[in-house]
Amino acid sequence: MRVTVWNEFFHETRGDETVLRHYPDGIHAVIADGLRELLGDDVEVRTATLAEPEHGLTPDVLDSTDVLLWWGHARHGDVEDAVVERVLAAVHAGMGIGVLHSGHYSKIFKRLMGTTCSLKWRNERDRELVWTIAPDHPLAEGVPNPIQIPEQEMYGELFDIPTPDELVFISSFSGGEVFRSGATWRRGLGRVFYFSPGDQDYPVYHHPDVRRVLANGVRWARPQAPRRELTADHHPRDWFVQG
Amino acid sequence: MRVTVWNEFFHETRGDETVLRHYPDGIHAVIADGLRELLGDDVEVRTATLAEPEHGLTPDVLDSTDVLLWWGHARHGDVEDAVVERVLAAVHAGMGIGVLHSGHYSKIFKRLMGTTCSLKWRNERDRELVWTIAPDHPLAEGVPNPIQIPEQEMYGELFDIPTPDELVFISSFSGGEVFRSGATWRRGLGRVFYFSPGDQDYPVYHHPDVRRVLANGVRWARPQAPRRELTADHHPRDWFVQG
Amino acid sequence: MRVTVWNEFFHETRGDETVLRHYPDGIHAVIADGLRELLGDDVEVRTATLAEPEHGLTPDVLDSTDVLLWWGHARHGDVEDAVVERVLAAVHAGMGIGVLHSGHYSKIFKRLMGTTCSLKWRNERDRELVWTIAPDHPLAEGVPNPIQIPEQEMYGELFDIPTPDELVFISSFSGGEVFRSGATWRRGLGRVFYFSPGDQDYPVYHHPDVRRVLANGVRWARPQAPRRELTADHHPRDWFVQG
Amino acid sequence: MRVTVWNEFFHETRGDETVLRHYPDGIHAVIADGLRELLGDDVEVRTATLAEPEHGLTPDVLDSTDVLLWWGHARHGDVEDAVVERVLAAVHAGMGIGVLHSGHYSKIFKRLMGTTCSLKWRNERDRELVWTIAPDHPLAEGVPNPIQIPEQEMYGELFDIPTPDELVFISSFSGGEVFRSGATWRRGLGRVFYFSPGDQDYPVYHHPDVRRVLANGVRWARPQAPRRELTADHHPRDWFVQG
Repeated sequence: MRVTVWNEFFHETRGDETVLRHYPDGIHAVIADGLRELLGDDVEVRTATLAEPEHGLTPDVLDSTDVLLWWGHARHGDVEDAVVERVLAAVHAGMGIGVLHSGHYSKIFKRLMGTTCSLKWRNERDRELVWTIAPDHPLAEGVPNPIQIPEQEMYGELFDIPTPDELVFISSFSGGEVFRSGATWRRGLGRVFYFSPGDQDYPVYHHPDVRRVLANGVRWARPQAPRRELTADHHPRDWFVQG
Repeated sequence: MRVTVWNEFFHETRGDETVLRHYPDGIHAVIADGLRELLGDDVEVRTATLAEPEHGLTPDVLDSTDVLLWWGHARHGDVEDAVVERVLAAVHAGMGIGVLHSGHYSKIFKRLMGTTCSLKWRNERDRELVWTIAPDHPLAEGVPNPIQIPEQEMYGELFDIPTPDELVFISSFSGGEVFRSGATWRRGLGRVFYFSPGDQDYPVYHHPDVRRVLANGVRWARPQAPRRELTADHHPRDWFVQG
Repeated sequence: MRVTVWNEFFHETRGDETVLRHYPDGIHAVIADGLRELLGDDVEVRTATLAEPEHGLTPDVLDSTDVLLWWGHARHGDVEDAVVERVLAAVHAGMGIGVLHSGHYSKIFKRLMGTTCSLKWRNERDRELVWTIAPDHPLAEGVPNPIQIPEQEMYGELFDIPTPDELVFISSFSGGEVFRSGATWRRGLGRVFYFSPGDQDYPVYHHPDVRRVLANGVRWARPQAPRRELTADHHPRDWFVQG
Repeated sequence: MRVTVWNEFFHETRGDETVLRHYPDGIHAVIADGLRELLGDDVEVRTATLAEPEHGLTPDVLDSTDVLLWWGHARHGDVEDAVVERVLAAVHAGMGIGVLHSGHYSKIFKRLMGTTCSLKWRNERDRELVWTIAPDHPLAEGVPNPIQIPEQEMYGELFDIPTPDELVFISSFSGGEVFRSGATWRRGLGRVFYFSPGDQDYPVYHHPDVRRVLANGVRWARPQAPRRELTADHHPRDWFVQG
């Protein structure tokens, strides 16, 4: 399984001490390490960032990616539309994608969802509890119920997303808010998941249970069949007389 | 209730005799007549077409539209992206939309769904039977089960759409194909329905049961509250100490 | 619209002072008053209790009930199976039903859901916040987001229910738990909702927002068509040659 | 993986020549052979029938069954309620179950669904086409789209079931009817699927694609974790202070 971890890699390059303490080599590096640690030889992990040509997401890279993870926050608007369309086409053809935390407002997530993807937020060190409501779901395999995250940005409802195919996690925050923090959808032949825990200001991607969910997610989202384009096909009347 | 019926109005203007026999003043005119006939004074119907400035969908028109119906086929690519984004924003803020037949491949439907919206098709006078599988749903009110359409283009599965919030109709065709021909989704604060029966080559929009479904659809899709924009809101920690 | 409010009426008859302070004439009386207050002449409200013959749910009563509300807690096992089957058949034929709070463990709710309907609980005066996640849904009309309930029993996930057709409310509790506190399903031709806020030890059914949700619920759950039995029907091959 | 194939084994024992030509040792024998052929050493298949003590479904048998397949038709009423409750409890604790064809009217399926499970039918050698609408789903792995069944009983909508978690197959029949012929649900910790092709009067369980779906189904429905009972658990306030 080949995974590409995409990060806008912006906060980390501006010298913000808090961010650098948690993610000196970038959020993508920590996420990639977690996948390697948990999936071992089953996975080959690459990273890509906004500043690279074509944001590191050339046709070749996407063609050889089974699952793409997406982290962005402050530079959603700088992602080129052509690259967004390319990623969208790859998902439709079968590539899996996991969108993380502030990636809820990325162009690609809004294109996949068809909604505004807006939510409530507050960055004041709330405790987040991530409750599993689909105990059977692969995303929740091997994590405690709830996952306890001591300090995290609050994301609250109303989260403007389409009704999930599968609602896996609901979080509460110390301020009393709730959030659908883990959910899945199908789009074309590709599987999509969103998982909200994870922020540049907190060491959430070092949390072993969060790492476990991401590893579960890429395993769940990997293609079930060779990639193929869905097109409008003419279907002749005599199609079923096949002898 | 104020409804705007949008039609690309292309086939009808090119002198195709079959199309003109069924729709001498355009498909939109026949659809609009059906709504006026069935909804009477409850509805104020306008039409808009591709050739008009801004395709007839100026901010003023959209602001004063409760439900938009969308028919297009051969000129999807000519619809300006700026207008598509404007319609999308209106739906997110609460405007209802009904997408009809070949509108499955319109830019606005693909933006709302996040999928390719591809399907199988064959234009050879299939008989279509439209079965109600949600007898309780407002879209199906007052129509026989099944609706019988003597001649119609075949649309078949796989129809690449997200799992509907409500699957209301499933059609069969004389060639043996099946199709999820009536379905609903929420997007932002707006309600979306898709209904496939209806084609430029057949008099389907004169069919009394098809007219009934469209009238049901606009009634179902109308906004439930004043339009408002969904945004990312900061939620202070002390929000709930309201006394 | 004719509503029957069913209550096992057990806690109130045993002299528990806390319960009697909030519900001197029974929980059903307070719920019924709320419906009359909010729905006025649109509704005719009756009550029925466990101790009555056939628990007050004779065929005549059910035949003339559009929506049944169900509250029970300590005496689920005393409800006769024959009455449960009668209520189930009425729902299948189109009667609406709203199951309240500890009614999650009633025979009728388990029959409608097909699951165990188990959950976590704690009776220690938690503050409950009830967040709307389906702003468009009739159940949530006119209530603040969130509804704030100062003291309430905690109900927490995992709540073993089938995936709701519509998930309307999610609650958080001061202990950090979350709960899918308002949801809907279709069963046969009948509409079903569950709403968890409400307990014999707290004055929750006097809370104006809770009363509003119950009034919304009975309006939403009322039958859309005359009651009829669903049966296995033979469908002759020539059914569609209707001339 | 241990599978138990349950069959009421009634038609076959009454000397009906058509049935005996297709299923001389019983429908269960043919289904079991198909599973062994396709799953090989991955599966251990047993059978059980109505006439056996406790219908062959003792606690020991259920405890050692990962997935139960259920075929019944003429003797649903003879299945003891105590056995139905036992099967239901096993599903809630994690056992998978696949309900086949006329099993739609079995006690266990109605208990799992909470609906009437009624449908339309006609036994006149219709051709059935089984279309995949969820190409990603394990149930549809390796089967052509559509599966073509030359002769089969017609089952048509309205099929009174709860909205499926996943709708995998939709069938059409030569009479023009449609049917949701393959679908899944979760109940408790157990996975449930329904698959309609298969009848005592036609050799459908010898059809290689139908056999493939059944093999796919038992693989999909097997438990994801050790069996456990879901109960109402008290959750103390200090649960999360775990150090």
